[in-house]
Amino acid sequence: MTGGVRGGPTLSPSTRVRTTPFTPRIEAAGVTAYTVYNHTLLPTVFRSLDEDYWHLRAHVQLWDVACQRQVDVRGPDAARLVQLLTPRDLSAAAPGRCLYAPLVDADGGVVNDPVISVLADDHFWLSIADADVDLWVSGLAHGLDLDVSVSTPPVTPLAVQGPWAEDLVARIFGDASREIRFFRFAHLTFAGHPLMVARTGWSRQGGYEIYVDRDDLALPLWDALWDAGQDLGVAAGGPNLIERIEGGLLSYGADMTRAHNPFECRFERFCHLDRPTTFLGRAALERIAARGVARRIMGLELDAATLPPCVAPWPVTVGSQRVGEVSSAAVSPARRRGVAIAMLDRSHARPGAEVTVATPDGVVVATVMDLPFPPSPAAVPA
Amino acid sequence: MTGGVRGGPTLSPSTRVRTTPFTPRIEAAGVTAYTVYNHTLLPTVFRSLDEDYWHLRAHVQLWDVACQRQVDVRGPDAARLVQLLTPRDLSAAAPGRCLYAPLVDADGGVVNDPVISVLADDHFWLSIADADVDLWVSGLAHGLDLDVSVSTPPVTPLAVQGPWAEDLVARIFGDASREIRFFRFAHLTFAGHPLMVARTGWSRQGGYEIYVDRDDLALPLWDALWDAGQDLGVAAGGPNLIERIEGGLLSYGADMTRAHNPFECRFERFCHLDRPTTFLGRAALERIAARGVARRIMGLELDAATLPPCVAPWPVTVGSQRVGEVSSAAVSPARRRGVAIAMLDRSHARPGAEVTVATPDGVVVATVMDLPFPPSPAAVPA
Repeated sequence: MTGGVRGGPTLSPSTRVRTTPFTPRIEAAGVTAYTVYNHTLLPTVFRSLDEDYWHLRAHVQLWDVACQRQVDVRGPDAARLVQLLTPRDLSAAAPGRCLYAPLVDADGGVVNDPVISVLADDHFWLSIADADVDLWVSGLAHGLDLDVSVSTPPVTPLAVQGPWAEDLVARIFGDASREIRFFRFAHLTFAGHPLMVARTGWSRQGGYEIYVDRDDLALPLWDALWDAGQDLGVAAGGPNLIERIEGGLLSYGADMTRAHNPFECRFERFCHLDRPTTFLGRAALERIAARGVARRIMGLELDAATLPPCVAPWPVTVGSQRVGEVSSAAVSPARRRGVAIAMLDRSHARPGAEVTVATPDGVVVATVMDLPFPPSPAAVPA
Repeated sequence: MTGGVRGGPTLSPSTRVRTTPFTPRIEAAGVTAYTVYNHTLLPTVFRSLDEDYWHLRAHVQLWDVACQRQVDVRGPDAARLVQLLTPRDLSAAAPGRCLYAPLVDADGGVVNDPVISVLADDHFWLSIADADVDLWVSGLAHGLDLDVSVSTPPVTPLAVQGPWAEDLVARIFGDASREIRFFRFAHLTFAGHPLMVARTGWSRQGGYEIYVDRDDLALPLWDALWDAGQDLGVAAGGPNLIERIEGGLLSYGADMTRAHNPFECRFERFCHLDRPTTFLGRAALERIAARGVARRIMGLELDAATLPPCVAPWPVTVGSQRVGEVSSAAVSPARRRGVAIAMLDRSHARPGAEVTVATPDGVVVATVMDLPFPPSPAAVPA
């Protein structure tokens, strides 16, 4: 796959990898790289990782995140089922809230890390990372004979991210959008239709995700935001590898999998073992909590001005001892060094520890960092 | 995505989209297109779709199909659970058999269409199409409190496909490999290690799939087949869009989804409603069988010398009436016309019916065909 980023292989066209209602605008905006996420095209790069990074931090971007499929759970047993999925206590979660919640299996392995939107006491949307969570939830619901319906409605989120996101969204949805608090949502009107607008998104620049539930509104909404944002420097963008590593945002399937438990992923604050919540992996998580974890996810700052793309985990060593592996890495133009996310043995999972990383292009010295990374300059250095 | 095949966007590198143990040879062989399948790179094109097609039909190819993950189900309740998943009666399935089996949910929707290998009476591998079947099976197993373990072991299939596959595989595994019957497997020795060798594969040219369960054997096996096959014209290949459409091989997620039932997908012969088998969707399938299906998957021959890539379904019409949609299409150089797979209203799902197809490049006249397509010349026209 190193060839893939160096002008090599393209992505085969098929209907199995879905386009989205926004794809025409994405293509027109000059997308240069996609990934495939939940069987759907996710635009990742337009100009370059670096240029997109600086732009995201200074302006406002529209992201086609239709790949964030919504697993819709509703019915008399919906609240019980959704609580079964996660160690996060949802008992006080009122409609209008969005909750980031790791899902765990019976062994305590992380199945996904969706944002759960509470639409009503008996109606939830799980905005999922890259895995077929609908199959997991359906299988459990059927096996447990629960009175719920589980579906994946045609909802295609559009993210508006960046420091000018609040102003841009207010120009389309009115000042009510400014009142939406972090990880809350409201239904606001566009073209006479109420759309769910949430103060969420996969960057730390701030912004919204708009859940477009009518395909015919997708391009009008894109165009309205585009036209209204010209003086704010609006551009097409996508989750930015550099920015999300610095922001400590983990990518499910890369930085964590079912082979990891939530404590290794620093999700303690979402594991309410001290409350009487009934969820699938409770016994497993109690065992793990009692004995402690052997590894933990951390940041790394790499002494490197260039790095190859990280397409397979890079070993992390201290002397001849392997102490972990890097799962995501990029060079940050703001720090002028490499930044990475790594799962490290507990012994070395402390800020300031010195390690070495074996990249395909050679060994690099690195320093362990807390996640997220501390702030860095938000403008292109002169 | 039309840009994707015309020299446009590449595929973003990440560890979330897995490379495979064969990737170094795939890159060295000059892969020009990948798709992403089960979160894994699947090489699809090397020289061109047409050249790869002619080569596959005349010679022998090595395919990196590591993306065909194996969902391993074992334990006292394994046979009961695997039977619950599919309407195909597995009661007589002995170890050594491979069974193509649609999986259905409680509503009769197709969840996947794996090949199920019977390793022992209480041990099965589901070689899955593009969906996280492990989550479905795990969810059911947990919900039903069954005594099974469900896992996804590190097994990476390598397919050897084409008219010379039997000779090539015999050069490495001995004549015992010639004795393996269609949809059976045997354990044969390579480098002192027994590998599961099955007479299966996603082409109709014949061949094998070798289930490599030790990563360190992947490149030695590739190299042994490569070296032994030089006089047979061995080349790197992959599932070929043209060949598989002509062969009537359906692609899960493209040609069929959970929105389709197995009768619409022509899977009657795998739906044993007349036997006392207990499976999830029985009630739903009995209802559907009683009332008949409204649509059915068919082939289309299109009166076109060129076609754009099919990245979103193409409407099929008769006059002003919409009668279905195309899910996969390509121009066959052997037929010198377009070939396609389409889900058509029952009224038009009969060979010989004339329809029109709205492609992004214009309307094309088409004739409905049975699947698979009849044989066509196997050599490049002079």
